[in-house]
Amino acid sequence: MARFLRSKKEDIGIAPDALHFRGDKKTDKTRLRVFDYNEETLTEMEVEKVSELLKYRGTNSTSWINIDGLYDTELLEALATDFNIESLALSDILDTHMRPKVHEYDTCILISVKMLRYDEALEEIIAENLVLILKENLLLTFQEQVGDVFNPIRERLRKNKKRIRSAGPDYLAFALLDIVIDNYIYLISLLGEQIEALDDELIQNPSMDNLREINDLKSEINFLRKNVKPCREMVLKFTKLDSDLIDEGMYVHFQELQNNIDMANEAVDGYREILSDQLNVFHTNVTNRLNDILKFLTIFSVIFIPLTFIAGVYGTNFDHIPELHFRYSYFIMLGVMLLIASGMIIYFKRKKWL
Amino acid sequence: MARFLRSKKEDIGIAPDALHFRGDKKTDKTRLRVFDYNEETLTEMEVEKVSELLKYRGTNSTSWINIDGLYDTELLEALATDFNIESLALSDILDTHMRPKVHEYDTCILISVKMLRYDEALEEIIAENLVLILKENLLLTFQEQVGDVFNPIRERLRKNKKRIRSAGPDYLAFALLDIVIDNYIYLISLLGEQIEALDDELIQNPSMDNLREINDLKSEINFLRKNVKPCREMVLKFTKLDSDLIDEGMYVHFQELQNNIDMANEAVDGYREILSDQLNVFHTNVTNRLNDILKFLTIFSVIFIPLTFIAGVYGTNFDHIPELHFRYSYFIMLGVMLLIASGMIIYFKRKKWL
Amino acid sequence: MARFLRSKKEDIGIAPDALHFRGDKKTDKTRLRVFDYNEETLTEMEVEKVSELLKYRGTNSTSWINIDGLYDTELLEALATDFNIESLALSDILDTHMRPKVHEYDTCILISVKMLRYDEALEEIIAENLVLILKENLLLTFQEQVGDVFNPIRERLRKNKKRIRSAGPDYLAFALLDIVIDNYIYLISLLGEQIEALDDELIQNPSMDNLREINDLKSEINFLRKNVKPCREMVLKFTKLDSDLIDEGMYVHFQELQNNIDMANEAVDGYREILSDQLNVFHTNVTNRLNDILKFLTIFSVIFIPLTFIAGVYGTNFDHIPELHFRYSYFIMLGVMLLIASGMIIYFKRKKWL
Amino acid sequence: MARFLRSKKEDIGIAPDALHFRGDKKTDKTRLRVFDYNEETLTEMEVEKVSELLKYRGTNSTSWINIDGLYDTELLEALATDFNIESLALSDILDTHMRPKVHEYDTCILISVKMLRYDEALEEIIAENLVLILKENLLLTFQEQVGDVFNPIRERLRKNKKRIRSAGPDYLAFALLDIVIDNYIYLISLLGEQIEALDDELIQNPSMDNLREINDLKSEINFLRKNVKPCREMVLKFTKLDSDLIDEGMYVHFQELQNNIDMANEAVDGYREILSDQLNVFHTNVTNRLNDILKFLTIFSVIFIPLTFIAGVYGTNFDHIPELHFRYSYFIMLGVMLLIASGMIIYFKRKKWL
Amino acid sequence: MARFLRSKKEDIGIAPDALHFRGDKKTDKTRLRVFDYNEETLTEMEVEKVSELLKYRGTNSTSWINIDGLYDTELLEALATDFNIESLALSDILDTHMRPKVHEYDTCILISVKMLRYDEALEEIIAENLVLILKENLLLTFQEQVGDVFNPIRERLRKNKKRIRSAGPDYLAFALLDIVIDNYIYLISLLGEQIEALDDELIQNPSMDNLREINDLKSEINFLRKNVKPCREMVLKFTKLDSDLIDEGMYVHFQELQNNIDMANEAVDGYREILSDQLNVFHTNVTNRLNDILKFLTIFSVIFIPLTFIAGVYGTNFDHIPELHFRYSYFIMLGVMLLIASGMIIYFKRKKWL
Repeated sequence: MARFLRSKKEDIGIAPDALHFRGDKKTDKTRLRVFDYNEETLTEMEVEKVSELLKYRGTNSTSWINIDGLYDTELLEALATDFNIESLALSDILDTHMRPKVHEYDTCILISVKMLRYDEALEEIIAENLVLILKENLLLTFQEQVGDVFNPIRERLRKNKKRIRSAGPDYLAFALLDIVIDNYIYLISLLGEQIEALDDELIQNPSMDNLREINDLKSEINFLRKNVKPCREMVLKFTKLDSDLIDEGMYVHFQELQNNIDMANEAVDGYREILSDQLNVFHTNVTNRLNDILKFLTIFSVIFIPLTFIAGVYGTNFDHIPELHFRYSYFIMLGVMLLIASGMIIYFKRKKWL
Repeated sequence: MARFLRSKKEDIGIAPDALHFRGDKKTDKTRLRVFDYNEETLTEMEVEKVSELLKYRGTNSTSWINIDGLYDTELLEALATDFNIESLALSDILDTHMRPKVHEYDTCILISVKMLRYDEALEEIIAENLVLILKENLLLTFQEQVGDVFNPIRERLRKNKKRIRSAGPDYLAFALLDIVIDNYIYLISLLGEQIEALDDELIQNPSMDNLREINDLKSEINFLRKNVKPCREMVLKFTKLDSDLIDEGMYVHFQELQNNIDMANEAVDGYREILSDQLNVFHTNVTNRLNDILKFLTIFSVIFIPLTFIAGVYGTNFDHIPELHFRYSYFIMLGVMLLIASGMIIYFKRKKWL
Repeated sequence: MARFLRSKKEDIGIAPDALHFRGDKKTDKTRLRVFDYNEETLTEMEVEKVSELLKYRGTNSTSWINIDGLYDTELLEALATDFNIESLALSDILDTHMRPKVHEYDTCILISVKMLRYDEALEEIIAENLVLILKENLLLTFQEQVGDVFNPIRERLRKNKKRIRSAGPDYLAFALLDIVIDNYIYLISLLGEQIEALDDELIQNPSMDNLREINDLKSEINFLRKNVKPCREMVLKFTKLDSDLIDEGMYVHFQELQNNIDMANEAVDGYREILSDQLNVFHTNVTNRLNDILKFLTIFSVIFIPLTFIAGVYGTNFDHIPELHFRYSYFIMLGVMLLIASGMIIYFKRKKWL
Repeated sequence: MARFLRSKKEDIGIAPDALHFRGDKKTDKTRLRVFDYNEETLTEMEVEKVSELLKYRGTNSTSWINIDGLYDTELLEALATDFNIESLALSDILDTHMRPKVHEYDTCILISVKMLRYDEALEEIIAENLVLILKENLLLTFQEQVGDVFNPIRERLRKNKKRIRSAGPDYLAFALLDIVIDNYIYLISLLGEQIEALDDELIQNPSMDNLREINDLKSEINFLRKNVKPCREMVLKFTKLDSDLIDEGMYVHFQELQNNIDMANEAVDGYREILSDQLNVFHTNVTNRLNDILKFLTIFSVIFIPLTFIAGVYGTNFDHIPELHFRYSYFIMLGVMLLIASGMIIYFKRKKWL
Repeated sequence: MARFLRSKKEDIGIAPDALHFRGDKKTDKTRLRVFDYNEETLTEMEVEKVSELLKYRGTNSTSWINIDGLYDTELLEALATDFNIESLALSDILDTHMRPKVHEYDTCILISVKMLRYDEALEEIIAENLVLILKENLLLTFQEQVGDVFNPIRERLRKNKKRIRSAGPDYLAFALLDIVIDNYIYLISLLGEQIEALDDELIQNPSMDNLREINDLKSEINFLRKNVKPCREMVLKFTKLDSDLIDEGMYVHFQELQNNIDMANEAVDGYREILSDQLNVFHTNVTNRLNDILKFLTIFSVIFIPLTFIAGVYGTNFDHIPELHFRYSYFIMLGVMLLIASGMIIYFKRKKWL
């Protein structure tokens, strides 16, 4: 899991349109992948140079160019020039620590959002900045490294699902955002499953491991929340865009995005509260269990205290202790001790202390 | 009680208008029930095929078609085609994990809401997604399984209550939503009764069972809240709809819905706070009771400590301990012990430790 | 004190305009009282039948008809017909569990609010639903049982206070609402007095009774809050009404209502926080006091532990223990014990443990 | 410090324009002070009768009439008549428990606000209701008793500061409100100083006195907050007034008021949170310190327990205990005891329990 | 770190346009630095007198005059007169305790903001008030002492970065605010690093030092929050300014400011919650560890209690204790003791108390 906030001293004071990559170098090579499609045909290919992409400008078909790796700023600059993306938008692409945002530039719409996915190899949640550049008949997506959550969309494109193949890049952008938000909900539900599984354990058999687990889940929920919460604002702004690049008919889908991100937010907040409650229950329960043990042990000791005292009294070496010389004194003492112990046990039971 | 949030990996990335049932398969068979009525007549029947429903299109009487079971997507598709429901609305019907929403489609108004009811057989609260499709002279309601909270409405229809029989499907939709929200309030009041019953017990005789009970009630209240809260937003949007399908005269009733859902929300929040307070009181009270026991036991031990010490001193085997040889030494020792014990008890009582 | 929320199964699904009394039957008989007044004359009387009220319709003088007891629905229906009150308004009157609301019906303005008063006989706060129906020259007020907070208004009417006698039913409605809200503030200040009185006791001499008292005050404050909070919304809506039934000059008074209900809300929230703080202080203080006692007792025991050990050593029966046979051994032992005890006490004092 | 909320039974139901003084009688005599000034001249005097004030009506110079003492309602009524103040405004002046408010009456603007000042003689914060009545060329200020925070303004008037002497009563009203809010900030900063001074003590040497101090500071901060918070609303409304009595050029100053009251609110909220944190730290720290003591004492006892047991074993009177008869048994026992004690100490040190 | 709030008695009641310096005297000398630039040329110099600055008025190039030190009010007054800054703006410059604000005066735009930087020599965060005065072709910046965060901007100016050199003072103002906010984020991330580093330690090896550290971090986060939070409001207002002094093309950059300050706010709030959670975890963990120790020690004592009792019984001096005289009694007793101890250990292990 990444750090909650990261800011490097050398990133401060850079001009807003400087082409300065603020992320961590995660890959050297930039991978360029193209899907060019319309209702009839689909071309899927990986290219090496930006120049190979030029033919996808100004076609009637919809082109989706997926760029993985942001370290080669020269290549990106060439891309920006060829596809007419202004430099401010390009510097937004490179600022991978940016808050989710939507901006309508003169030449394009830029959407920046955090893409979260569970990496099964690393066993952790990966957060990566994703930028969508929407132009006429063209969608460019930029991310830091290879690996994304878009395979279902690629499948739908390949399988010639009528809806997606006949629609433009605005629908594709919606579909990608939709899948990003669906993944938020999926990740939250994964954590939620672990959180709800804790419930019974915390009541029946609380241990220090539970404390550690609650704490870990809390950090993970906080991490999700930090990424999901500002996304809500972004989606709200997105649904209010009034641009020629977005078809009238899309707005009904945007409602869906809004509903889903609201659901994600509510679920994150709900689980945060559940975790707080669980910590309370853990604390109360651990304290109660220990208290029960201490109570038992204390009562156990208390019963022996007067008995040991009596034995002590008859262990004294006074010359004249009449009781010492009666025949059954010893047995009487043992009997009295038994009586005292029983009396105390009965008393404690009556008081419900045992 | 259902899980707080559920999301399945295979549901991610489905096209928004794909006919993909996201719920759990709860029933195989889809049941179709019809109420067709106007002020004079009422027909109530259960049909097998969608084709039998066609005669209820375009009549002047109001028709309520109730569909239980969403697994037979073919049947639903046929229904959507015959009754002119767009595919996006149909896919909303199938997405049973959706957040409550209202949407005015070109051909109909769609209202999606969670229906909660207490199943007395299962002894738990059942949450089910309910979708209402409002068209001219027609209301379709979709739910996952047989069993709902609408019997009082059916009774009113059968008993020819003038108001409901003379009104259109908009009034029927209102009446159904009203009963859904009335059930929220009823369920909250059921939980509330249990919560308020805990109050006295927590002060007088707190036990670990109370902790478990508070915890269970908290989850149930959280579950209710998760369903009730987004409904408020939906109702607000519903009351602001400006559609030909809704009669001017309905808006006074919508105020009622708004008032009731506000009351439900306030009650849920109120009980959540009461439960938090109860947990605090429980914790404080349990701690205090244990502390009182420990204090008593500690004082008991402390009284015996100097006595046992004295006995120990006279149990030593020194050759010259003058006190050992006086005639009444032993009795004097016992007397001194009694004095010490009494003194300590008086001291502790004065200090209000006993 | 009444329950926080109440909902009965048989009340669910009733038509919104059904004449269904939702309260508890508190009185059999419905009492009808009339004040009819203008600047010159005042008639005050109690009547038996609705027909006796008819003469107060359409007069130029202002009439205030006060109806106590809502169980006789037939009488109420007659009243509604005679005074031209629509059935939806009448069913609002009967729904005594309703959230405070204002509604401008075609024929009247309806104001529903909770009237709270301290019943000195029962020693508890009584909450009752009060409905005001404002018509031209006429104000009807409905409540469940005999007993209200309006005597100061009646006095002002009788004493021919110029302002109230010369004004219409809108001013009377304002005056009644004003007194209802003044009573909220008075009840809050009564509770507040008890709460602030707890402050010193909690620091100086906390006891389990205080815990119980804090808890009781918390429920009472919660009960007040539940009734006061939605009233704020109602007052806000009331002050924004634009109706012919309300004189222009009234709006300056409505500001007053707004200010008072805001003050009530702030006070309730303030006392809730004070109670939370008090619970914290109680908990901390009780824990500290017990801890001080335990510390003292533990130190007391600890001092005797090495002494008892020494006595034990010289109580052993070894054949060769040289110390036993010296002349002053016993007294040396006692001296050493004294030294050890003093040393420990000094050590603990230095460490500030004593 | 005054009570948090005060409401008397006999104040309920009074007509809104009744001249009923709701405060406590704090002074018998009403003091009337006048500052009449323009750029050239300044008259400062104290008068006995209202009639002496009449000459200040309708002059071109600005007059500030300061009335201390509200108990002589006859005098106030005369004043209201002579200076044309409507009766509703006058009854606002008398209602000293009112929430801060601004109201634009037909004949004047009324501003009601709480004036807080630290009385060095009483060593407590004094809260008093202050009412400003703004009319053309005239400002009247009403307060319950002698003593206010306005001396710096009087000085600026006397010293012929150009800005204040050349401006009208609107600027004077602003200057008075500004100084009232400056005093809020000053009082908060005084409390803040005490709060921040607690920080170190709580970590290094927490005592029950700190608990009492935190509690006292909390009540004082609550008291300030109760007075400062509603003032923010009032100032906001004040800055939005659109009246002939207020010069266009004043609005830039009103921004200042807004900024200052916002700062006061934020500071109060900040200190409330700091106090809550301090209570937490206090609790944690006190518990930890006691726990350390108990741990030390318990370990001390535990070390002696096996030693005392061994001595006990060799104190038994069995006929055949071989060890008793060896020559160095006693010393061997002592040695073994030393070994056991050392071993335990080493063990506890390794476990970091000591 | 500075105090949370500071207000001096002598600052109360000063006229809003009085030239009264409210800060602490931090430097005697006022330093004047000028950057005058356009796309072609850049002049950078430090001057002694205000008169030397006059030539930068009314030029076509952009001038940035940086004033460090606010104690020489005469110099500032001269500056204000020469550069036509109204006296209200000048008194804002001198009020260094002011809340962040933006105000559009007739002659200039004033922006007041807190500049935070980490002073590596003092090892603490320095907060200083920064005021920007934006005029045509001119930006004046005022701060209390030498030392700021603007070096990257100066570098960009010197290195003839095209964007900044070709733009006017509005872009420069944006760039300075941007760097101020970037420093907020950087400081938050520095604290955040320390906070997140605590996480593991708190679970594995909590100590009182951690409590102190959490407390210190909490004060620092509170200090940051106090400065960052009101800045958000200021930035929002700034982005909404509609002034001739600000170029249309700047608004896209202002979005960036908004995004960054939102991110800073969210991060501060996030870390505050993390610290609260950490305090909870610390408390729970410390309590649990101590409880484990106490449990172990108590069980250790409890095992010896019956053994010591048995030894006590056979230490009594009764004449007739048959067991004392059997040959192997002593060894049987030791065996029985061993059995009892083992039994208890097994019992406690089974109960999972050990």
